[in-house]
Amino acid sequence: MKRFLIILVLFNQIYAMAQKQTKEYAIVIHGGAGNLVKKNYTAEEISQYEQTLSTALDSGYAMLGRGITATEVVTRTIQILEDSPLFNAGKGSVFSNEGRNEMDAAIMDGSNLKCGAVTNLQHIKNPISLANHIMNHSSFVFLNGEGAEKYAVENGFSLVDPSYFFVEKKWKEMLRIRDSSKTQLDNENRGDINEIDKYDKYGTVGCVVLDQFGNLAAGTSTGGITNKKYNRIGDSPLIGAGTYANNETCAISCTGHGEDFIRLVVGHEVHSLMKYKHMSVQKSADKIIQKELTEINGRGGLIAIDKKGNIAISFNTTGMFRGYVNGKGEKYIGILK
Amino acid sequence: MKRFLIILVLFNQIYAMAQKQTKEYAIVIHGGAGNLVKKNYTAEEISQYEQTLSTALDSGYAMLGRGITATEVVTRTIQILEDSPLFNAGKGSVFSNEGRNEMDAAIMDGSNLKCGAVTNLQHIKNPISLANHIMNHSSFVFLNGEGAEKYAVENGFSLVDPSYFFVEKKWKEMLRIRDSSKTQLDNENRGDINEIDKYDKYGTVGCVVLDQFGNLAAGTSTGGITNKKYNRIGDSPLIGAGTYANNETCAISCTGHGEDFIRLVVGHEVHSLMKYKHMSVQKSADKIIQKELTEINGRGGLIAIDKKGNIAISFNTTGMFRGYVNGKGEKYIGILK
Repeated sequence: MKRFLIILVLFNQIYAMAQKQTKEYAIVIHGGAGNLVKKNYTAEEISQYEQTLSTALDSGYAMLGRGITATEVVTRTIQILEDSPLFNAGKGSVFSNEGRNEMDAAIMDGSNLKCGAVTNLQHIKNPISLANHIMNHSSFVFLNGEGAEKYAVENGFSLVDPSYFFVEKKWKEMLRIRDSSKTQLDNENRGDINEIDKYDKYGTVGCVVLDQFGNLAAGTSTGGITNKKYNRIGDSPLIGAGTYANNETCAISCTGHGEDFIRLVVGHEVHSLMKYKHMSVQKSADKIIQKELTEINGRGGLIAIDKKGNIAISFNTTGMFRGYVNGKGEKYIGILK
Repeated sequence: MKRFLIILVLFNQIYAMAQKQTKEYAIVIHGGAGNLVKKNYTAEEISQYEQTLSTALDSGYAMLGRGITATEVVTRTIQILEDSPLFNAGKGSVFSNEGRNEMDAAIMDGSNLKCGAVTNLQHIKNPISLANHIMNHSSFVFLNGEGAEKYAVENGFSLVDPSYFFVEKKWKEMLRIRDSSKTQLDNENRGDINEIDKYDKYGTVGCVVLDQFGNLAAGTSTGGITNKKYNRIGDSPLIGAGTYANNETCAISCTGHGEDFIRLVVGHEVHSLMKYKHMSVQKSADKIIQKELTEINGRGGLIAIDKKGNIAISFNTTGMFRGYVNGKGEKYIGILK
């Protein structure tokens, strides 16, 4: 009988440990990758970026602690980044060649592979919220432009005036690049405009989480590329490319020169390496970013989290706005390499 | 000396055989999958479908024989299907809920992973040709709606009047489904509208080829889903989902209920099963269509070809308009299971 009781107590302890382990939760965010150079930022600017990343992380981690589900945490965390004028998404979206803000977003639920995505929005304050609504309340995955905004209005979203998205710094960036491009066409040897990378040329925001229930989710939101033309769509709203989540492996959000991320189907490739080659999330992320993306001269990075809460961040640019709170509650925020 | 000559002759023969083997080429096409029921088609209709599939196959196979490259053959073969009023792409595109033709297309070159895609076109006769142009002559991958058409005009494409795409049968289908849906909303038990599947509800056209130079390419073109709303985008123009090609493994074009193909990232999943699990193209295709797609109640199919010319066709509907000419020159055309 005594032996039986000891076994029972041991069993309960193991069970409690297992319970605790499955309740581990973690969050990773990014605010875009690029060839960031320290001297281009004032100490105050760096502090502003870090503060916003920190606020978003704290908020997301606290929500996870309260038992809020993965897709909801991804959505509300990205909303904080969308509402900041600093990042290239929502409020801070860059301007297209025609002087418009054209926003894309996507979200995916790793527990059931449901997903929602939007492209070419011009009047939606939080594109990630609309993507979330499409995922949870419609039979669609991907809605576009005016049609997506019609869906939004029919489902209780307010349209905002495009002036909401006006941020003078971003407007001037577009004008400067538009003029540089024009100058370049006039005289191709006139100068190198790589300097523009110090701004959010490839900016995007993203969030991946593991919640208390063992579920993964990923979300991405972007204003695209400064001075973009022809209603170009990048990788952010494309499920499998810029955004992907699957409880079997991991959740991923990318940022960078979208065309190359589409060609490599980056999100689903990370998943495939983990599922079929049994590689870790960090090794999978590094293989595609440091090797495959670099080999085709692509630039950017990704954040990922696996079902055990292991976090991976990989980028081949000089910097990436990023941060996480891991399963032990340890917090990290970084900008440069 | 004599022995040397014999060895030389033998070597030449082996070399010639090897050359011949690498010069093997093949083509597969589809014109959409659905719950096709024989009694819903007249003998004349069946004959028209078969004739158009046959013309497209003969044309594509002859081009491959003349040494035309994979992406060009895919483009020109799909053009033939787009120009027919029978299939749901180009001329025969179905109508959206708003009474518009909204066309999507994508193409991918397996030799270099370059790709091009378009969505929400309303005035382009051959969407696949515009996708091809974007792939070969721009730094973009995916252009959208008015912007894509602006790119087209700047690059020598003509815009056609929407009346070009008017096909009375497709217009009536949309009206009938639109009315049925309305009726359904009014009285959900009034009837089953699955009958509409006999038409091109999930119609799409696609082509995959292996050319004489050992290169693979895939293309897909569609008018979307009859009565679709909100500028919905399906899987066809999404690289990795409805369209994918990679010389390492295979080229794939899908057709079906697009949302499910996006969730499963079908094209890239077939590639991953071949690359990392060393499964054959037919086994990979069957695993995702017969098992994974079916498990999430998705419907549709895919065509694929690998780098050795092995052809795979898989669908979980009652029919799929399809055909191929394999590496031995054997031709096949099928509609029902």
